[in-house]
Amino acid sequence: MSRPRGPEMVNGFTGASLAAQPPHIRELLIRRGKVLGPGYQLFYTNPVEVVRGDGVHLYDSTGNEYLDAYNNVVSLGHCHPAVVEAVTRQLSKLTTNTRYLQADLLDFSERLLATFPAELDRVTYTCTGSEANDLALRIARAHTGNTGIIVTRNAYHGVTAEVAAFSPSLGPSSPLGPHVRTISAPDPLRHGTSVVADLRTEIRAAIDDLQRHGFGVCALVVDSIFSSDGMQPVPTDLLGVLAAEVRAAGGVYLADEVQAGFGRTGTGWWGFGRHEVVPDLVTLGKPMGNGIPVAAAVLRNEVGREFGRKVRYFNTFGGSNVPIAAAAAVLGTIEAEGLIDNAHEIGAQLKRGFARIASDHPHLADVRGAGLFLGIEVTAPESTEPDRVLAQSLVDDLREHFVLVSASGPHGNVIKIRPPLVFDAADAALLLERFADSAARVLPT
Amino acid sequence: MSRPRGPEMVNGFTGASLAAQPPHIRELLIRRGKVLGPGYQLFYTNPVEVVRGDGVHLYDSTGNEYLDAYNNVVSLGHCHPAVVEAVTRQLSKLTTNTRYLQADLLDFSERLLATFPAELDRVTYTCTGSEANDLALRIARAHTGNTGIIVTRNAYHGVTAEVAAFSPSLGPSSPLGPHVRTISAPDPLRHGTSVVADLRTEIRAAIDDLQRHGFGVCALVVDSIFSSDGMQPVPTDLLGVLAAEVRAAGGVYLADEVQAGFGRTGTGWWGFGRHEVVPDLVTLGKPMGNGIPVAAAVLRNEVGREFGRKVRYFNTFGGSNVPIAAAAAVLGTIEAEGLIDNAHEIGAQLKRGFARIASDHPHLADVRGAGLFLGIEVTAPESTEPDRVLAQSLVDDLREHFVLVSASGPHGNVIKIRPPLVFDAADAALLLERFADSAARVLPT
Repeated sequence: MSRPRGPEMVNGFTGASLAAQPPHIRELLIRRGKVLGPGYQLFYTNPVEVVRGDGVHLYDSTGNEYLDAYNNVVSLGHCHPAVVEAVTRQLSKLTTNTRYLQADLLDFSERLLATFPAELDRVTYTCTGSEANDLALRIARAHTGNTGIIVTRNAYHGVTAEVAAFSPSLGPSSPLGPHVRTISAPDPLRHGTSVVADLRTEIRAAIDDLQRHGFGVCALVVDSIFSSDGMQPVPTDLLGVLAAEVRAAGGVYLADEVQAGFGRTGTGWWGFGRHEVVPDLVTLGKPMGNGIPVAAAVLRNEVGREFGRKVRYFNTFGGSNVPIAAAAAVLGTIEAEGLIDNAHEIGAQLKRGFARIASDHPHLADVRGAGLFLGIEVTAPESTEPDRVLAQSLVDDLREHFVLVSASGPHGNVIKIRPPLVFDAADAALLLERFADSAARVLPT
Repeated sequence: MSRPRGPEMVNGFTGASLAAQPPHIRELLIRRGKVLGPGYQLFYTNPVEVVRGDGVHLYDSTGNEYLDAYNNVVSLGHCHPAVVEAVTRQLSKLTTNTRYLQADLLDFSERLLATFPAELDRVTYTCTGSEANDLALRIARAHTGNTGIIVTRNAYHGVTAEVAAFSPSLGPSSPLGPHVRTISAPDPLRHGTSVVADLRTEIRAAIDDLQRHGFGVCALVVDSIFSSDGMQPVPTDLLGVLAAEVRAAGGVYLADEVQAGFGRTGTGWWGFGRHEVVPDLVTLGKPMGNGIPVAAAVLRNEVGREFGRKVRYFNTFGGSNVPIAAAAAVLGTIEAEGLIDNAHEIGAQLKRGFARIASDHPHLADVRGAGLFLGIEVTAPESTEPDRVLAQSLVDDLREHFVLVSASGPHGNVIKIRPPLVFDAADAALLLERFADSAARVLPT
């Protein structure tokens, strides 16, 4: 391909295997190179073509069936009929925006806010998690009068100019803003029991440094599963401590629930609930519409007051009819099908199963996660030394055997498993069986 | 309502008429105040409730039919069956993202790029026009190595933190970035024949000032119909001159086609075509999916090269299946129904008709526009002194007689008429008749 290579991405297609691809894959790759703009990347050493989805499965054009253990947007499963039906009905009836009065918008907003602690009582809609984080930061800046932002070392929060500036996982060529400081993510495998005390020390230093540079403290932004930091579900007493430090310095705590939200972590609707702390702002996205773009910022009324006094915010599609209809169908289906409990149960089954497999493989140093958001750390044997190459081999071997997962973490060595919430016991058993087979093939003994 | 009032907006509901609203409207207003976050605003002195749309009509819950002469997102008309059918089919088949290979994405991208001059040969998808402008600026910054941005005095380009910083129409409480300079929009009613020379002088001063402050020149960003500057379709030799100045200073020309694109101005697909200049980057949005969130940045390959080398860009929903299916249906329908020619013809009918009405009313100083994007300037009689109050009275009188338009411009005195592209001769005749009636009722003689 004549396009320049982009920066390295965990589990990204590098183009090295281009010549080895089947002709129809090669043709698609060449066509992509001729029309798509900068920055696009594909997954896997051998990219996957998809033409159809159904429940927990994706299909390619030659009829192969893939077990999808990665895609969290379709948290109800691919092509869930409740969403198809709700969107079709709405599209046939009305598609307009929030500058007209509409009861549907209010009905949904009331239902959505009922899933939050009472303090979080207002919602503003956007189309993407990036837009939600961008807006939340504008609101936080107006509220605090400060600009400094604290995130974890390998955090990812989105792709607007504002949000990319506090998303260090985008890599060294995507610079952080001068007003951004990073702290370590928790990593009990390496920190031992001092995680909370260590991170309190780190955040105090970050706060001091932001104040010393005149930025002040605007916001601590974290996702409660620390996804791009390698998925760290514990300790659950950490976020409350960090939030208290930031609030004492005049800042707010923004919980990025774009990945962890809507029941994924198996304990209530929102990931921060596991941590027993109530944020000042919360951002939502990906699974909110099961494939229809819809996202939101939820906040305490008083946090939004100053922004509302100064600035109007109109997002043409944010809160428009079709996204809201899709989101209402998703909310209703999560409740009707008991998907939060399912995430808890099937997640526990998977965690037990992966732990059993790991006990046979000294390269699998840790199995962790919450609900259906799991990480398996691949290292040198009986060590905490990350092994990214081996992790990629596992991901690729699973892909060749029709199971889709990916990898994450600052060292790219943590297998990331995040199936649709409708995964059942048989799907989990199949995933475990295939994973055990891949581990046996790929991991040195 | 207990919520604080936001900043003033042209044709915004102020709350003053709350007590006079019917009970079910008042109830909706109160519910909005209790759940929606900061920044939301409604249109009109008496807000409009909508429950259903069909073609060029919107309906409220008491069965009133409104002629929609304002909503450009549904440029095929409300609830066009081609979009309903395409989206339903796609939702039932597959909703995933650009990290998997998919022929549909490439098929559509090739069709879309074929509507552009050959130099504009790459496309990156986002969900909103704001995201597209945000991304385009990141790309332009990487390409030029500069940060300075030039926009028109009352420009609007979107709501991310980055883009709000160069959207002066958001008002004085939403500050412009230190790297942003404004120039006048063309205004032949007031400039006379010296518009091009005057603006060349202004842009040269802006360029000098950006260089003097060390920002350099990154981009000139304009929408080719100058929508929030009051809709200025002429002179058509201006943008080429401004683009040449910016390019000579090392910057690029970004055409914001979020409002003017997809045939709205009645001469080819893109508004910049009327100006006979080829931009370096183009952003698309609103009508692209007829109600499904989808947007894009189109660019010259070499302009994206440096960004692609440094940064990856992944927008979960941008370029995902459902938005692309909707966009393909829109593109196909614009072609199949000859909507660009229709915009040209019906636009001309409207312009003639409004000019005839204006000739009876000394307060209607100018009728202008291109295709189905029209502005009627309301002033003191036989004068160029803007009369915002009278313009609002006209907009509100039309709304009370079931015709939806709005107002725009730095003084809020330009009636903004922007109906769906499927407006036919009878719709236009009805709009003209109602407008003449409102003018007779509202305008002093």
